[in-house]
Amino acid sequence: MTKTVAILGASGYTGAELVRIIATHPSLRIGALSADRKAGMKMADVFPHLRHLDLPTLVTIDQIDWSGIDLAFAALPHGLSQALVKDLPRSVKIVDLGADFRLRDPADYEKWYGKPHDAPELQPEAVYGLTEFYRDEIKGARLVAGTGCNAATVQFALRPLIEGALIDLDDIICDLKNGISGAGRSLKENMLFAERSTDVAGYSQGGKHRHLGEFDQEFTMIAGQKVEIQFTPNLVPINRGIHASCYVKGDPQAIHAALAARYADEPFVVVLPFGQAPQMGHVAGSNFCHIGVVGDRKPGRALVVSTLDNLCKGSSGQAVQNANLMLGFDETSGLMLAPVFP
Amino acid sequence: MTKTVAILGASGYTGAELVRIIATHPSLRIGALSADRKAGMKMADVFPHLRHLDLPTLVTIDQIDWSGIDLAFAALPHGLSQALVKDLPRSVKIVDLGADFRLRDPADYEKWYGKPHDAPELQPEAVYGLTEFYRDEIKGARLVAGTGCNAATVQFALRPLIEGALIDLDDIICDLKNGISGAGRSLKENMLFAERSTDVAGYSQGGKHRHLGEFDQEFTMIAGQKVEIQFTPNLVPINRGIHASCYVKGDPQAIHAALAARYADEPFVVVLPFGQAPQMGHVAGSNFCHIGVVGDRKPGRALVVSTLDNLCKGSSGQAVQNANLMLGFDETSGLMLAPVFP
Amino acid sequence: MTKTVAILGASGYTGAELVRIIATHPSLRIGALSADRKAGMKMADVFPHLRHLDLPTLVTIDQIDWSGIDLAFAALPHGLSQALVKDLPRSVKIVDLGADFRLRDPADYEKWYGKPHDAPELQPEAVYGLTEFYRDEIKGARLVAGTGCNAATVQFALRPLIEGALIDLDDIICDLKNGISGAGRSLKENMLFAERSTDVAGYSQGGKHRHLGEFDQEFTMIAGQKVEIQFTPNLVPINRGIHASCYVKGDPQAIHAALAARYADEPFVVVLPFGQAPQMGHVAGSNFCHIGVVGDRKPGRALVVSTLDNLCKGSSGQAVQNANLMLGFDETSGLMLAPVFP
Amino acid sequence: MTKTVAILGASGYTGAELVRIIATHPSLRIGALSADRKAGMKMADVFPHLRHLDLPTLVTIDQIDWSGIDLAFAALPHGLSQALVKDLPRSVKIVDLGADFRLRDPADYEKWYGKPHDAPELQPEAVYGLTEFYRDEIKGARLVAGTGCNAATVQFALRPLIEGALIDLDDIICDLKNGISGAGRSLKENMLFAERSTDVAGYSQGGKHRHLGEFDQEFTMIAGQKVEIQFTPNLVPINRGIHASCYVKGDPQAIHAALAARYADEPFVVVLPFGQAPQMGHVAGSNFCHIGVVGDRKPGRALVVSTLDNLCKGSSGQAVQNANLMLGFDETSGLMLAPVFP
Repeated sequence: MTKTVAILGASGYTGAELVRIIATHPSLRIGALSADRKAGMKMADVFPHLRHLDLPTLVTIDQIDWSGIDLAFAALPHGLSQALVKDLPRSVKIVDLGADFRLRDPADYEKWYGKPHDAPELQPEAVYGLTEFYRDEIKGARLVAGTGCNAATVQFALRPLIEGALIDLDDIICDLKNGISGAGRSLKENMLFAERSTDVAGYSQGGKHRHLGEFDQEFTMIAGQKVEIQFTPNLVPINRGIHASCYVKGDPQAIHAALAARYADEPFVVVLPFGQAPQMGHVAGSNFCHIGVVGDRKPGRALVVSTLDNLCKGSSGQAVQNANLMLGFDETSGLMLAPVFP
Repeated sequence: MTKTVAILGASGYTGAELVRIIATHPSLRIGALSADRKAGMKMADVFPHLRHLDLPTLVTIDQIDWSGIDLAFAALPHGLSQALVKDLPRSVKIVDLGADFRLRDPADYEKWYGKPHDAPELQPEAVYGLTEFYRDEIKGARLVAGTGCNAATVQFALRPLIEGALIDLDDIICDLKNGISGAGRSLKENMLFAERSTDVAGYSQGGKHRHLGEFDQEFTMIAGQKVEIQFTPNLVPINRGIHASCYVKGDPQAIHAALAARYADEPFVVVLPFGQAPQMGHVAGSNFCHIGVVGDRKPGRALVVSTLDNLCKGSSGQAVQNANLMLGFDETSGLMLAPVFP
Repeated sequence: MTKTVAILGASGYTGAELVRIIATHPSLRIGALSADRKAGMKMADVFPHLRHLDLPTLVTIDQIDWSGIDLAFAALPHGLSQALVKDLPRSVKIVDLGADFRLRDPADYEKWYGKPHDAPELQPEAVYGLTEFYRDEIKGARLVAGTGCNAATVQFALRPLIEGALIDLDDIICDLKNGISGAGRSLKENMLFAERSTDVAGYSQGGKHRHLGEFDQEFTMIAGQKVEIQFTPNLVPINRGIHASCYVKGDPQAIHAALAARYADEPFVVVLPFGQAPQMGHVAGSNFCHIGVVGDRKPGRALVVSTLDNLCKGSSGQAVQNANLMLGFDETSGLMLAPVFP
Repeated sequence: MTKTVAILGASGYTGAELVRIIATHPSLRIGALSADRKAGMKMADVFPHLRHLDLPTLVTIDQIDWSGIDLAFAALPHGLSQALVKDLPRSVKIVDLGADFRLRDPADYEKWYGKPHDAPELQPEAVYGLTEFYRDEIKGARLVAGTGCNAATVQFALRPLIEGALIDLDDIICDLKNGISGAGRSLKENMLFAERSTDVAGYSQGGKHRHLGEFDQEFTMIAGQKVEIQFTPNLVPINRGIHASCYVKGDPQAIHAALAARYADEPFVVVLPFGQAPQMGHVAGSNFCHIGVVGDRKPGRALVVSTLDNLCKGSSGQAVQNANLMLGFDETSGLMLAPVFP
């Protein structure tokens, strides 16, 4: 049984990553590809690495014939999914890779995104797309809101620790090293090769990054009390990957045990032996997340490192994982691609 | 029907690449992994990116029980396959990724590798592993000699032109840009990150590179006269990929037409529209080779650019492609992985 | 004796490189910095690496008080210098880093740049800025036209060979590997980090690159007959540097001897021992050009490799070298900075 | 007045960096270069980027004629300086770039380096080489112990805060991003280009890094009570640079004010406006350290970012700065080289 999908926003990196994954997915076929400014172009001209595939020509969203589409992946700039989803036939399932439906509370959305939500009536319907923690809800959902890539990386490290009341909620510091593809394909001077290739640069430091909205929502919900982490992303000259160093107060061995137990049966989350920390380069091109725990010389302090590929497990891989559940396929279908190293 | 393979030399990059490909191959399973100095280690410790796989522990070659092995991939340093192949049971098919059986003439071997061949009686049996040109012989072979990665890249560009007598055989200049992984995982000062990361460096210039032995053998055979190309590889700070700029004298349109016709039905070789040249980054992580032809302002001169991933299509992907033929599988089985970009 | 300079177009990479060099130049001070769109900004905000310097605020060109300016460096987009130079006081000497005055023949300019020259009356006055070959003319010039960065790299390799009639003029192939900073700081999708960081991509292949206008002009003049080289630049993921592989027909030893003799007394051009080729990473951040010659296995064929830093010796360093001559300073003043490696 | 120096360990990166700096230093000349295994080689063959310089041939240390040497830079592997310094004439001043004399207490040395010190009698004489904080002692010293590169980066951020009692001493977390050249030129598999170029990898996490010995010594001394920071270095694929993210508890504005005041007159330490964080790429190739402070959304928490070039300000630049003081030169002599960007 094959299902047909549309990819909206196929000229961006997460769009291309969806095509890459679906290229060897046994049960999905691509029925439509949209791109606003590049409509009319062939995908081979927009992304020559996909040249060997027989793909539909790019169209605008309103040119799509939805009758044959089972599910749409929306890889659109923030804010565009809201209006779109309202207008789609109810028969089309939606995995939104953007930020529009991640926050359940309209006030939170307005706080972090600076304007009221355009489709607040859909917010309650949207299921938060962190598959390993919302699996059952995702299976039955029509609309799934993919998580932020940073948000996924850090939550894999911290959710079991907050659930288990294993760490001090007031002292959580997450310092991330971020691959550049997370900034997307849009033109910004600070994303030029010459600006980034020998640089490390933090951004949105001090509590301004929008993914904090997701952390606050999820961690506060789990803890049953307000939780605010400190969070700094730092651009490093690598295409793919997020490496999160989470500094927490708690017993390192207990923390490791909780993570190992929580993910023992998860196909995509691998916990390393105690004392080992994972490396960003070892998950690139894959849907895997590697987690490690190292105890500090100061008793009661631990470093929890979590790493994944922002374009895959942090975005498009997660999206396919969720689509698999929504369409009744095996959750790992098409996603067991091994990381590419070196 | 599943076949069982052994990977000899699994602690090197081509060994790891074989495991990566086989991880999602529908009909191959790994029965043994060998590594001389790292015998006894777990593959997850040697290559943590393969951590999610259930793999045999590394052993020495003589610890392998060959009774259950259908085919061995030999990813060994140059010179080690010769003795090995002699001692293997005749029931085990062999794909040698090294240089030991690429040259049919023992004198050629001694010329380029500086010592007599240890198993000259096996040389006639070995089939040269450039799949697209030796497909029928490979199907029936017991021993296939994988090509050099540079040798594959350039031959895809030039063989149809020499076969078609479309270019001047005395003026063929091939300037290559080479990813660093081609140097393998052995310790050399000039392969340290700090030495390579902001550098371009040619090596073995002027006719000293061993892959010239393959070019001379193949091109002279095809042309029916002695052919010696000029050939310069240049290290560029990229992990994977070879980008060959081949400067030839001949009619650009006829050259493009010959290449397009020759590869029209090949699943892994893609010829771009006339006037376009392929980019190295668009084949990484895949078994595809992209070829393009651009005419020069000087009439009768053309630039033919060929690019592939040295670890995959240039080595381990080619090896699996050959193994597929030798074991009776579909040639593309497990190899349709799309390139990883960005 | 200190002279005061203005830098026009200070918000681009060559502008910043001029400031970097002048920062430790014993006899130059910066009197004005212009940038069109960034006028009003502090240089520390445009280029934070220059934060420690006490620099003028960026202004528009028409805000500059020319009375105190001895020399202007024009690091402007192509086409803008023509009108500008006409309007400057004759007392201000000019080093133009752009392309506007490189071609002496108005017809050549129109051919390569697609429009008539706006100041053809100034073209005869402009001296071509390849210091080592136009030193005497530059000393007395009011207007010097900096060379293209590729043009400089290749001319250092080939001029002495053409002058000495040492090579076949019909078979000159130059394959270049180019650092990304040569594309400047303007916003183009294909200059994003994620597009370039794992890629090699040729561009303007086949005779379309504008620097060919310079090659044709200079080489034809030297040879006394029409000379057209084949020339391909290829982007590699490095910030700074050009590495030119020039394939020529001639006696390798004679070629090496000619180069060694020609540059024996030049402070910035270093010829390596015969058989050695220079590496791009060994000139970065400096005003040096390294040249090497390797003979091919085919008799009568040689590879001449020339490498320099496109922003320094290929542009801003050359500009200061010329300014030193024009202002009566020692030619090497401020320019003996050693390359930065690793 | 020119002084003559010897560089011991000139075949390593810090040795080459010393040569680079001294190449344009107005008052230093190089009298001897030593390298154990590469003795007899020309520096141009060991480091071709220094090819334009007229340098002594590499010798072994015992071949050096000390009579003409005013000062020796010892850029040797850990442990080798101890015996060496004992044997040098007292007339030779020494700047040790290694770890041998950084710790004043023999017990601390043994704790962090795993063996007793070979020259404990010299430990009291050695002055800790963090110039901005030991300036007066360095002026009169015979033996100066260069700091660890990480140790320098973090101390610039934290010393004024501890001195001013502005931060909670029990909650100091320093997460560093480290350029690869800090690992030196020795052969290690994990330092190969292919291993590092797309990876982020922490190391010596949890309190095992030897630079903690320096932090503990200095911070405990300043605070008058035991201070133990948490500290994690992380390798990023860049040659030069350290970027330290220091998470502290204290008033962000007061922290910024203290740093700005402390470094107002320092020539090499630049404090950015409040709320801005410096980037690693903006100090490469220079002796500058940039520091910034950002307040967190959680009141009473601040991020202090400090960045410098590990080979220059973190090692060889610091060494020359100290040598300037020891030899009576202006402290900034030869060190005002602007950073190289891009």
